[in-house]
Amino acid sequence: MTTGVTEFTPQLSRNFADTEDSPVRALLDLVSRPGVISFAGGIPDATYFDVDAIRDAYRASLERPDRSLQYSSSEGELELREILAARLTDEGVPTSSDDLLVTTGSQQGLTLMGQVMIDPGDVILVEDPTYLAALQTFGLSGARFVAVECDDEGMLPDHLESAIAEHGPKLVYLIPSYQNPSGRTMTMSRRRAVADVLRATGTMLIEDDPYSSLRYSGEALDPICAFEGMAEQTVLLQTLSKSVAPGIRLGWARVPSAIRDALIVAKQAIDLHSSTVDQYAAAHFLAHPENHRSDEEKLRVYGQRCHALARELPRALPEGSRVTTPLGGMFLWAELPEAYDTDALLPYAMREGVGFVPGSSFHVDTSIRNTMRLSFVTNAEDDIVEGVNRLQRAVAAYEAERNLK
Amino acid sequence: MTTGVTEFTPQLSRNFADTEDSPVRALLDLVSRPGVISFAGGIPDATYFDVDAIRDAYRASLERPDRSLQYSSSEGELELREILAARLTDEGVPTSSDDLLVTTGSQQGLTLMGQVMIDPGDVILVEDPTYLAALQTFGLSGARFVAVECDDEGMLPDHLESAIAEHGPKLVYLIPSYQNPSGRTMTMSRRRAVADVLRATGTMLIEDDPYSSLRYSGEALDPICAFEGMAEQTVLLQTLSKSVAPGIRLGWARVPSAIRDALIVAKQAIDLHSSTVDQYAAAHFLAHPENHRSDEEKLRVYGQRCHALARELPRALPEGSRVTTPLGGMFLWAELPEAYDTDALLPYAMREGVGFVPGSSFHVDTSIRNTMRLSFVTNAEDDIVEGVNRLQRAVAAYEAERNLK
Repeated sequence: MTTGVTEFTPQLSRNFADTEDSPVRALLDLVSRPGVISFAGGIPDATYFDVDAIRDAYRASLERPDRSLQYSSSEGELELREILAARLTDEGVPTSSDDLLVTTGSQQGLTLMGQVMIDPGDVILVEDPTYLAALQTFGLSGARFVAVECDDEGMLPDHLESAIAEHGPKLVYLIPSYQNPSGRTMTMSRRRAVADVLRATGTMLIEDDPYSSLRYSGEALDPICAFEGMAEQTVLLQTLSKSVAPGIRLGWARVPSAIRDALIVAKQAIDLHSSTVDQYAAAHFLAHPENHRSDEEKLRVYGQRCHALARELPRALPEGSRVTTPLGGMFLWAELPEAYDTDALLPYAMREGVGFVPGSSFHVDTSIRNTMRLSFVTNAEDDIVEGVNRLQRAVAAYEAERNLK
Repeated sequence: MTTGVTEFTPQLSRNFADTEDSPVRALLDLVSRPGVISFAGGIPDATYFDVDAIRDAYRASLERPDRSLQYSSSEGELELREILAARLTDEGVPTSSDDLLVTTGSQQGLTLMGQVMIDPGDVILVEDPTYLAALQTFGLSGARFVAVECDDEGMLPDHLESAIAEHGPKLVYLIPSYQNPSGRTMTMSRRRAVADVLRATGTMLIEDDPYSSLRYSGEALDPICAFEGMAEQTVLLQTLSKSVAPGIRLGWARVPSAIRDALIVAKQAIDLHSSTVDQYAAAHFLAHPENHRSDEEKLRVYGQRCHALARELPRALPEGSRVTTPLGGMFLWAELPEAYDTDALLPYAMREGVGFVPGSSFHVDTSIRNTMRLSFVTNAEDDIVEGVNRLQRAVAAYEAERNLK
């Protein structure tokens, strides 16, 4: 038997050897500090959780404890998948329960796709900016990202086509509706043109669709996977987080049959299955839309907040800044003049008691430093006004110290 | 714009290119077929779910919808971690809430450890047989497994020491209490000796502990991480699945501070966080042990079933078979004479309407074919007797067709 003690020094895997603390995590911490007005996270306003209907749903779930408290299958409870399949079919995407995989939030759909599809060095084509946790998660699988040029209507089909030809990507990742972080929405004609390119080139699409239920103006838009032939080459990710409540932590993926088995094996390895209690509660909630009370009011209030922030924000930002006004979702995006560095601005904002997310984490090229994301859903209009006042003081202090004015 | 359509043929990542359907998943399917008596899965008997206390717990969770329906932190709700930390401290493992990470079942703890610690080719030392989903999950991270010799008291310290010297493993994976699948329990003196080797060599331990609440005889046993200095180099995985209900799908990992941040980043990438509703329900349930009704009865009944299966099983198996009688947990393990192939036996069993798990999936050397795992927790004693009758007929048919008798 060896005596003496060898000091314990764990050697992490290469992917995690240089773990940096995540920006999203830091943000969620930020949000919770008392007195801070945070535009940082995409945190729904709890006022509009449909609490009574959700309580009913959990009560119903626990009325069948032999099912709801038991192990589930990795693909998810059939009852929930059938309800989701019927909804998707109604919305123009013919879907059977076999096409669906229940996930622990749609974030897990990204992880599963990274594991099942991506080898180190594989290229993923993305919008720029794009969802930072997608970059982070696919990055852990070793993906390389190539940004395809976009205009206000979304990704440019010609650029997409030439990027596919040049890079032979494993897949394309898009958030067509009320994009995070840009707030941009891809028009129907643009969706069709993008679908044509993807179909013609046999390129897989991840269509991330967390926000489509949060529409404040304009027409409802079909997902790209609703276009002819696209369902077979698209993984559509949806979630309860924005439409019902994030704490329930359920999402789902509509997946092509060619990758279904692999995704189920990956799902099983990750967590066996998602909470069965939550799955039966979600099935009951979705099956009883007549009990939902808050949806219309939530959309009205979120829409007002969106306009309030879009109206107030410009006075805080330097001349030459651009601010989006989204048709839905949770986020405004601001582009400041190039001399401004929003990572450097953030500490000034925190000193004034206001939070936002510097845009650098959302860019493939993280050297871009003059953008920022602001969520308008969490705060009431008065707080939005006060938050912008604070941001205005922060920008002024930053400019003074940097001689920017 | 390209015309013509390229056929869509997804190219999976190397890890998933040859996805085989998982044995566990096939088993969970098997279990649910009507009329089948299954000894296959480790499926708790729903009769002993503490349904009233669980309902109270969800009611309490949803009384704070602004918390329980909202996003949580990736490490899990502080309130739950504090309760778990106090329990672990009481049980001899001094723990603060910062040492804990809430997971979506303890299966997720295995995934996180695989991602954070394992590079392709890294060695993990295991018991043989060991938990098949651990082999599967670590295998997806590219681990190589080396089986260390065990006797009835657990892993042999001298063999462990020489295996560490020979292979320089990234970590050792053990299930010291009521092991899955062997039913074996590591004695206290063996735990101490193993801890001495691990500490002296600075080797990380994953101590998987799902079953310790299911003890039918003998003394309570300290986990290995309770021995001096071991908490800093052990990841202890525990779960509500066996002690409360698997459908709630919550586990937790007690982790050394050196790898905590990396695990939280990995957890965030996987699913952001586990269900907040479930976390608050779990916190309430664990904080009110006075409401728990079924625990004693469950242990009594499971213990009886364990003895019933151990008593009945030998008549179904060929002469020369060995059957374990565990002190706790969910599983019996049987070793048949070498001429018997339990993978080949399974179809005979299924034809008779009885299920078990062939042992090959639990061995590092999958060419070992003469072992089987049987769970005794799901079925009442009458069904256990009838299940063994069926197995007896299956073995007879198998022997007749193979001229084994």
